[in-house]
Amino acid sequence: MKKNYLLTPGPTPLPPQVCEAMARPIIHHRTPQFQAVLKEVTEGLKLVFQTKNDVFILASSGTGAMEAAVVNLLSPGDSALAIQGGKFGERWTEICQAYGITAEVMDVEWGEAADPSQIEKKLKANPKIKAVFTTLCETSTGVTNDIEAIGKAVKETAAVLVVDAISGLGAIPLSTDAWSCDIVVSGSQKGLMLPPGLGFISVSPKAWKLIESAKSPKYYFDLEAAKKALEKTDTPFTPAINLVVALSEALNMMKADSLENIFLRHKKMAEATRQAMKALGLELFAPTCASDAVTAVKVPAGIDGEKLVKTMRDTYDVTIAGGQAELKGKVFRIAHMGYIEKTDIIAGISCLEKVLQQMGYKFNLGAGVKAAQEVFND
Amino acid sequence: MKKNYLLTPGPTPLPPQVCEAMARPIIHHRTPQFQAVLKEVTEGLKLVFQTKNDVFILASSGTGAMEAAVVNLLSPGDSALAIQGGKFGERWTEICQAYGITAEVMDVEWGEAADPSQIEKKLKANPKIKAVFTTLCETSTGVTNDIEAIGKAVKETAAVLVVDAISGLGAIPLSTDAWSCDIVVSGSQKGLMLPPGLGFISVSPKAWKLIESAKSPKYYFDLEAAKKALEKTDTPFTPAINLVVALSEALNMMKADSLENIFLRHKKMAEATRQAMKALGLELFAPTCASDAVTAVKVPAGIDGEKLVKTMRDTYDVTIAGGQAELKGKVFRIAHMGYIEKTDIIAGISCLEKVLQQMGYKFNLGAGVKAAQEVFND
Repeated sequence: MKKNYLLTPGPTPLPPQVCEAMARPIIHHRTPQFQAVLKEVTEGLKLVFQTKNDVFILASSGTGAMEAAVVNLLSPGDSALAIQGGKFGERWTEICQAYGITAEVMDVEWGEAADPSQIEKKLKANPKIKAVFTTLCETSTGVTNDIEAIGKAVKETAAVLVVDAISGLGAIPLSTDAWSCDIVVSGSQKGLMLPPGLGFISVSPKAWKLIESAKSPKYYFDLEAAKKALEKTDTPFTPAINLVVALSEALNMMKADSLENIFLRHKKMAEATRQAMKALGLELFAPTCASDAVTAVKVPAGIDGEKLVKTMRDTYDVTIAGGQAELKGKVFRIAHMGYIEKTDIIAGISCLEKVLQQMGYKFNLGAGVKAAQEVFND
Repeated sequence: MKKNYLLTPGPTPLPPQVCEAMARPIIHHRTPQFQAVLKEVTEGLKLVFQTKNDVFILASSGTGAMEAAVVNLLSPGDSALAIQGGKFGERWTEICQAYGITAEVMDVEWGEAADPSQIEKKLKANPKIKAVFTTLCETSTGVTNDIEAIGKAVKETAAVLVVDAISGLGAIPLSTDAWSCDIVVSGSQKGLMLPPGLGFISVSPKAWKLIESAKSPKYYFDLEAAKKALEKTDTPFTPAINLVVALSEALNMMKADSLENIFLRHKKMAEATRQAMKALGLELFAPTCASDAVTAVKVPAGIDGEKLVKTMRDTYDVTIAGGQAELKGKVFRIAHMGYIEKTDIIAGISCLEKVLQQMGYKFNLGAGVKAAQEVFND
């Protein structure tokens, strides 16, 4: 019997309700039947985004929604500030560069959070900056940035704040409106408990103003076309129908649970994971600003990090993530995001202990699981 | 009991095997398990495209793959020839315009096929044309263009031939290599029997040469990045995992059936549909170049075309398509593409007869069904 425990920061496991919804006979997208679904999920997403802004669903992965933000907001030659503290922060810079936008890069040490006062200074020093590109949860390092504080810094300027919440939305707090986030982008395969294939993007009135004058070329990701279509409960191009139908199920589950409970569950799972790692004598990669969506852990000396991940997955059917880019082999990452519960965390830690022991790492067997149990018993 | 018969030119009905595959627990995309699937479906697509060229899978709908063709091949200021004989031909022009590419438009009467000798003339008259954008099956009018002849005309020039085969690939013949198609784009929700959400694109060596020097901005749809990733059996961004897994099932069905049988089945269903329409005294919209993937039929005088489609769908659970753009209300379209068999066609014609009779159209009840039966009995 093979039963896989998926503890990766995207894709995350699928609830049976979502699987069932995807397997239903497909409906045509230019029908009142689909329009009812599209209307419902658009409203549901607004609850999750905590916004009254427009929210659009794109047939793309999260990166497509990131590109939509850049090309709709800016023109070639415009200046932007890209906060770069990991692989996904770097993506903002890359997209800006691809479209001839001057990205001033604010480098943040990997494993640390961006300092909002630094952003404030950068914006004061360069009033030409039209957009600030940030990351809610930097999946590659397991860091959560203080978007609320960044929002306060950006709000008072002419610049718009763009947040990559692909990892984190629906798992950890993000108040789009209260925190003055002008554009928030996300994807389906993380907190939203769906397979990858949908991108989401919210747009504030301040962002729309900039969009009106932006001249970057665009077609598939044109948000003004998306807005015009959505006014008629439609999409400019064929939507990913069965993912949208499945989104309706996922949002129903989230509404029944409540955002408050969801955030609390993620917080508890993250705390249990962190305590377990400490009990095993392992070091967190981002001890001061650890995300409640994913925990990055330093691979201990003498242990082959890639082999650890591979053995857990291929021999014991527990899939965690290794390190990306410069962190390859140096960290492993345990996600506690989406359709994951405390039992999955206990299972994951137990498997980690098993493989660490096999690989010759010294610790007290059971210490990690026990530490997690204690957190869950609180 | 509600049981819907979907006879629309995208989405098309889903085979149960595809539904089952989509509902499976999701696997992570950076694993040998997913790599095995990606490798298998990439090879399988090459069979369906009838090509040895590179084929890439994008997380987007077909329009995303069309944009990928334009932005990877051309630079702002370049000249292209866009063959425009319906709503989807127009899309090529729109994408070119969005990216500052000069699209010379060759207008073709809606309902007629493009004349390959005209294309030859245009290319001779304007040697600056770098790409010719065409449509295999123009879904909005039910026309199939003679891509083989167009391929012969374009082959001898410096221009590359780009074919929108979103509607038609895997349903009607298209020999990418034998017909000298440099780029073929397609989507998942038509002949490939999947939900929408995947775009496909094949690239010939002649196209790669042009791509190397093209300067249009791009990131999400960058084919050179896709090529580099695929060399490591990877994708640049998160793929639409469960659609790719389902694609493997759809391709297995197609391989078991054989392209030859698939094309024959579509041809027979199309002929049955056309004969049925004639027997009902209805006029085909594209009598001389009718597609074997979808049949467009003129709405007879005195009948409300939109009400016809709506009644069939909402009262009798048979979904056909109405007209698009300037054909709205003037035609209806019956698809016979993908996971559709003769029984579905008989059911669709029978329902059409029922509603036409209710709406006061004069004909012999059963005449359409009988004409279709006769074709299937041949």
